[in-house]
Amino acid sequence: MLKLYDMPLSGNCQKVRLMLSILGIEYEKVPVNLMEGEQKKPEYLAINPLGKVPAIDDDGYQLWDSQAILVYLATKYGSTDWYPDDAEGRADVQKWLALAANEMFHGPAIARALIIFKRPGDHDKAKAAAEATLAVVNGWLENHEWLACGRPTIADIAVYPYAALVWEGHVDMSAYPAMNAWIKRVEALPGFEGMKNMPRPE
Amino acid sequence: MLKLYDMPLSGNCQKVRLMLSILGIEYEKVPVNLMEGEQKKPEYLAINPLGKVPAIDDDGYQLWDSQAILVYLATKYGSTDWYPDDAEGRADVQKWLALAANEMFHGPAIARALIIFKRPGDHDKAKAAAEATLAVVNGWLENHEWLACGRPTIADIAVYPYAALVWEGHVDMSAYPAMNAWIKRVEALPGFEGMKNMPRPE
Repeated sequence: MLKLYDMPLSGNCQKVRLMLSILGIEYEKVPVNLMEGEQKKPEYLAINPLGKVPAIDDDGYQLWDSQAILVYLATKYGSTDWYPDDAEGRADVQKWLALAANEMFHGPAIARALIIFKRPGDHDKAKAAAEATLAVVNGWLENHEWLACGRPTIADIAVYPYAALVWEGHVDMSAYPAMNAWIKRVEALPGFEGMKNMPRPE
Repeated sequence: MLKLYDMPLSGNCQKVRLMLSILGIEYEKVPVNLMEGEQKKPEYLAINPLGKVPAIDDDGYQLWDSQAILVYLATKYGSTDWYPDDAEGRADVQKWLALAANEMFHGPAIARALIIFKRPGDHDKAKAAAEATLAVVNGWLENHEWLACGRPTIADIAVYPYAALVWEGHVDMSAYPAMNAWIKRVEALPGFEGMKNMPRPE
């Protein structure tokens, strides 16, 4: 059975849990205790040398990085609906995967981590970066129902968790109505499973 | 003809220029003057709402993000040698694309940008992040000739530029011999074209 090296409050792990639940794949969670530094121990670094969650082990095939895992799951267990085969569709998905790896992390995810994990760091800077990124995504969603290809793809799965959780980082989401509507569309996908505060409590 | 929205000293643009030269694709460079803020003007934001280079326009198809452009070029003009079709190969490439978008940027690229563009920021922090990332990549390359699939792929093209240029950011590369050997392998690829200080002057 597929193993997910997991941390319950991680938005990066949630990308993978969400894809697994939508695709209906059974899996086993292997908790990695970040508070105790388990991710920096040799046994885990052998799985992910970056010392981060998530990672997977699928019958011996090991893989790290949440975006890479989405590509893997969509290709192996999903369909080209989730990750297209044509150059333009694939690239349109890919640009949002890069945004999920970079801008959605160094903005929304960090703003949240500084608050909920009480990490040291400059919250004002992370909040400003988050707002700049959210404005771009919101602008796109003003004219598009989904991030790429006119349908749900792994692009939406990759960007969604830190968008849905950024309010925990004290970023006001009321400025991004198109994004809020898209968040609800993602949460209405068949097989959707959330985590703590997902969907956001009323 | 394919247009590349370009800045000569950008390592992200170099990823695209290198792929284009290796694939033998003719293209036109459209300079974007970052010093004068052209990337934040409405005409350019219509092409890339993040206000960053590179972006491309291929006969009307517009795309931003250097990693996404590599996926596009490999899929449209390359072969599955550069970006595989099988789940494991594709995902193995993808994890390095994510590292190129995130860790190679918020480390090597920033350390260099703070020096050569005299940007404000914490160079010690960027240098430490760069060294942590380079150690991981070097560790992988101690046992592998290429980043993924046992052959050159877009993973190498995506990670190479900021690895080859990080010395400009005052990061000592002598600690990463496996990476230095890999840099030379990339530079020996047929069609390789460099930029300023690439290959590194003796």
